[in-house]
Amino acid sequence: MIQQEWDAGMPLSDAQQSQIEAARSQQTTTRRAVSPGMEERLYTAHQVLDHGFVRVIDYMGDDNAIVQAARVSYGEGTKHVSNDEGLIRYLMRHWHSTPFEMCEVKLHVKLPVFVARQWIRHRTANVNEYSARYSILDREFYIPAPDHLAAQSVVNNQGRGALLEGEEAARVLKILKEDSGRAYDNYEAMISDEGQQGLARELARMNLPANIYTQWYWKVDLHNLFHFLRLRADAHAQYEIRVYADEICKIVADWVPLAFAAFEDYRKGGATMSARAMECVRKLIAGEEVTQETSGMSKGEWREFQALLAQG
Amino acid sequence: MIQQEWDAGMPLSDAQQSQIEAARSQQTTTRRAVSPGMEERLYTAHQVLDHGFVRVIDYMGDDNAIVQAARVSYGEGTKHVSNDEGLIRYLMRHWHSTPFEMCEVKLHVKLPVFVARQWIRHRTANVNEYSARYSILDREFYIPAPDHLAAQSVVNNQGRGALLEGEEAARVLKILKEDSGRAYDNYEAMISDEGQQGLARELARMNLPANIYTQWYWKVDLHNLFHFLRLRADAHAQYEIRVYADEICKIVADWVPLAFAAFEDYRKGGATMSARAMECVRKLIAGEEVTQETSGMSKGEWREFQALLAQG
Amino acid sequence: MIQQEWDAGMPLSDAQQSQIEAARSQQTTTRRAVSPGMEERLYTAHQVLDHGFVRVIDYMGDDNAIVQAARVSYGEGTKHVSNDEGLIRYLMRHWHSTPFEMCEVKLHVKLPVFVARQWIRHRTANVNEYSARYSILDREFYIPAPDHLAAQSVVNNQGRGALLEGEEAARVLKILKEDSGRAYDNYEAMISDEGQQGLARELARMNLPANIYTQWYWKVDLHNLFHFLRLRADAHAQYEIRVYADEICKIVADWVPLAFAAFEDYRKGGATMSARAMECVRKLIAGEEVTQETSGMSKGEWREFQALLAQG
Amino acid sequence: MIQQEWDAGMPLSDAQQSQIEAARSQQTTTRRAVSPGMEERLYTAHQVLDHGFVRVIDYMGDDNAIVQAARVSYGEGTKHVSNDEGLIRYLMRHWHSTPFEMCEVKLHVKLPVFVARQWIRHRTANVNEYSARYSILDREFYIPAPDHLAAQSVVNNQGRGALLEGEEAARVLKILKEDSGRAYDNYEAMISDEGQQGLARELARMNLPANIYTQWYWKVDLHNLFHFLRLRADAHAQYEIRVYADEICKIVADWVPLAFAAFEDYRKGGATMSARAMECVRKLIAGEEVTQETSGMSKGEWREFQALLAQG
Repeated sequence: MIQQEWDAGMPLSDAQQSQIEAARSQQTTTRRAVSPGMEERLYTAHQVLDHGFVRVIDYMGDDNAIVQAARVSYGEGTKHVSNDEGLIRYLMRHWHSTPFEMCEVKLHVKLPVFVARQWIRHRTANVNEYSARYSILDREFYIPAPDHLAAQSVVNNQGRGALLEGEEAARVLKILKEDSGRAYDNYEAMISDEGQQGLARELARMNLPANIYTQWYWKVDLHNLFHFLRLRADAHAQYEIRVYADEICKIVADWVPLAFAAFEDYRKGGATMSARAMECVRKLIAGEEVTQETSGMSKGEWREFQALLAQG
Repeated sequence: MIQQEWDAGMPLSDAQQSQIEAARSQQTTTRRAVSPGMEERLYTAHQVLDHGFVRVIDYMGDDNAIVQAARVSYGEGTKHVSNDEGLIRYLMRHWHSTPFEMCEVKLHVKLPVFVARQWIRHRTANVNEYSARYSILDREFYIPAPDHLAAQSVVNNQGRGALLEGEEAARVLKILKEDSGRAYDNYEAMISDEGQQGLARELARMNLPANIYTQWYWKVDLHNLFHFLRLRADAHAQYEIRVYADEICKIVADWVPLAFAAFEDYRKGGATMSARAMECVRKLIAGEEVTQETSGMSKGEWREFQALLAQG
Repeated sequence: MIQQEWDAGMPLSDAQQSQIEAARSQQTTTRRAVSPGMEERLYTAHQVLDHGFVRVIDYMGDDNAIVQAARVSYGEGTKHVSNDEGLIRYLMRHWHSTPFEMCEVKLHVKLPVFVARQWIRHRTANVNEYSARYSILDREFYIPAPDHLAAQSVVNNQGRGALLEGEEAARVLKILKEDSGRAYDNYEAMISDEGQQGLARELARMNLPANIYTQWYWKVDLHNLFHFLRLRADAHAQYEIRVYADEICKIVADWVPLAFAAFEDYRKGGATMSARAMECVRKLIAGEEVTQETSGMSKGEWREFQALLAQG
Repeated sequence: MIQQEWDAGMPLSDAQQSQIEAARSQQTTTRRAVSPGMEERLYTAHQVLDHGFVRVIDYMGDDNAIVQAARVSYGEGTKHVSNDEGLIRYLMRHWHSTPFEMCEVKLHVKLPVFVARQWIRHRTANVNEYSARYSILDREFYIPAPDHLAAQSVVNNQGRGALLEGEEAARVLKILKEDSGRAYDNYEAMISDEGQQGLARELARMNLPANIYTQWYWKVDLHNLFHFLRLRADAHAQYEIRVYADEICKIVADWVPLAFAAFEDYRKGGATMSARAMECVRKLIAGEEVTQETSGMSKGEWREFQALLAQG
């Protein structure tokens, strides 16, 4: 399916592809810390959704930079932790954030506007977005693949339920394609200066729907990136942002393998238990029975607690 | 014109209007600093554009809170500044930011999505936006009044030029109205669960154009608010965000009159001169001739410099 | 002991005490949300350590403001959560941060410089500190009470061990008192302009030790305050900052009782489990045996895990 | 003088010097943007004050990264600005901050505690400071050179006046040296575990004065660094922080020469004029007379205005 979409709409033009290859072919010497995994990734566009991508433009630091910063802070105090992996796991486990802030990454992301609007809520990052006041947007819209065209969940107000079936799915796809096509035709017609004055771009853009693609440079430190990934590379996140977060996870795993492994264990795969939940855990281990009624939890909370214990 | 738009689409329902009146009728005693100008404003919706508004939900501090914070910092050192107005002007002139951070305001804003996208770039604020994942958006779209329907500027890539004339204006308005109406009809059709499953809201929203209205609570301290107002209550800002900033200026003038007067003099009405520009000013005052060529400035910079000297 | 220290050095002068009483006696009407618990607290100085205090200068919002912001975001989506308490607990459990950012508090804190240096690492707050460049610091130093005069821990590089005994304790207290007294005498002698020029204050202050008291206005939103309290009202925090955090916890409990109860259950009393730890929990509940060797945890991690299961 | 201090207290040990040389001797290839000026600087310690230094640990981006980010934002809209220098000057002149945020630098700084306390007020940066809870501080104190030992200013509460003369200067230096020496002796005596338990490090540190040296890793983006430099590489800043800012200016000039030149012209060498001041400038150029009385400015403001016109 992905392959089919890709063929239908390569996210990069030939000219862009050539630029990337040119950029990748240039190598210079540096005295800075170098992450081999990131060097391999640099500039290459990793496709996400039908026309989107993520690519690494620059980075600062590696696993060792985290260790180095921690050792500046804790001096002799870190000597008893025998190795880098142990120290990084210790920092992650005890919520030490500043050593992870010492690494920085700059990504070039192409993404639908409705995804960009979720993404930007993470404020501790630097952003340069393509401006539709200055420039003309491209005719590129996100159209969901049929296996991601889901109905509203009937149990969760913010979630998706079953896949749409046959005719309904076809009807939705037709609407999305036609409406975005017409909106773009009219956008072009309004800004055209042939035989008319031509509407200001900053006004004409208001006709474009939220599935149009935008792009930006997004620069963030590793601590805040982990926070983003914990929330967005998660089953509760909307699919269309989660696929970006999943792709970035792969990049981070190549960049700082030790830190990413600790993140997976303590954050992504970890769980936060309330005082009440911990009390239940202690009773369960002691062989006592616990029910929702005796747990002190609400029904929703109890359901989530049961799910946690059942996982694995 | 504004009146006509208002009649055509009151931004508040009767139920909302009653809620506001009920909230305004409740008064409690407090030991906190109270700004009479803000008490008068509280909860009332001030209309902006055709369906938007700004209203004050809460505030903290007043002019005196700025002075108080400055006196904590500078202790006896501020005694020589004889009065509050002088001290506030001194702080503004010398870019002391922290005393202004001691005041905070929480606004409820209803605004088109493309305006929200500009606004959110100011990251040092707290935001709770209406979620189109959870809830269904209302059928309300910004349609520019004819006297704001401008052509693309031919001299400035991010600006507007002359007003669109007769037929072209009519054509544009027709497109904007029809496309947003159709997009909303289809949005409703896709999420409907009558006789079908109903598309997930988080997907259906992607069909809606950028002139649909959203709303949020926006909380910001006075220093960062002034920064926002300097950039957005400015001739270079897009008209559709400037009208919000202008309305907020009136609110701030009622809230912290001394601080706002200092802001007007030093920031909003002030000018930043480069070292080269200052050199030219000194020569001009001494009666010497200066031209663009001898100024060391580029053509664009020289034009801006000339405009500064001509103002008043 | 506290009483004795208090008698020896009341943190407030009579003039300050009168100012507080005068401020507390003034009441005005307001349309804003009012928290009765905070009104009761306003301006009163709550003593911390020997000469320090925390007092509330201003606040914005209450439990209801959190609920209100959440309902703006989630609209109809929150209707199924039947009451405010349930909604606040839901928000806390699922790491929704922005509704808690809608409340703000401004505190006046007097604290030793070495505590201030830890405190300021929490960057998302607004601060106006007393300036020793402009003004002369008071002769007030933190001298630990004997029951907090502890030896370096032999197991934890950043912790305290047993209490110092008899002679050693006396020797330490003598040093701390004499050195700070002499440092202050010399500070005064250097800045004096009697019979000499008098050293600049910005230079003279460098002679003063880190147990001298400073003071500041500290303004922070509730979400970031909870983050501060989770780290500082904690057994791992240094005692001298923990007592401030503990005092602030009492204030917050009076301010936003529902939010504070949720914070206590999910954050302060809660626990974060790694993926490995959750795996062990599942096995233990199933009656299987787990050892450090089979857990995949390091010795330190296992020790912490065991402690978690033993608590209660 | 500097040389003499340097001889008296080299900021780096031989072991540290060897580590730096080893780090500098390693070169790897990278696909990232490389700034030759920074490569030359990397790891080398540039001495500041008697025992302090600044050294570059890592960096991201160069002048071209600023241009690149601006071109992402403004697309075709930037084509009319013919070259990189012109575009960077345009961005600086119009307060575009986000392109400058795309560059990042990580510095290792050794500095007296009272300087660190000023520095840390700039909150938009990442910091890892040496922890005196975990580790033992070195016996290194800032003692001002005689040509920086100034009296309190009689006109400016936060400034310095004339140099201290003969006996008074000698007396001050004697106090600073003796008090810091004694404080450190007692610090060592308290933490010693020979024949006693040994006071916890987190408590013992409170005896150390504010001229003791600390160190940290400080990571900041170029926009926020420029803000720091505008305030701290300035005649109004305290000398002891200004020398750090001046040293960093030299580093930035090597890193991003075009951006630094624009910063010098528009920020460092530029001036902010109030609306009232601009009105006076217009009158003066027109040959009209203006006095403080007719200017609408306060005496202090007028004095500053006169100074601006006289500079050059």
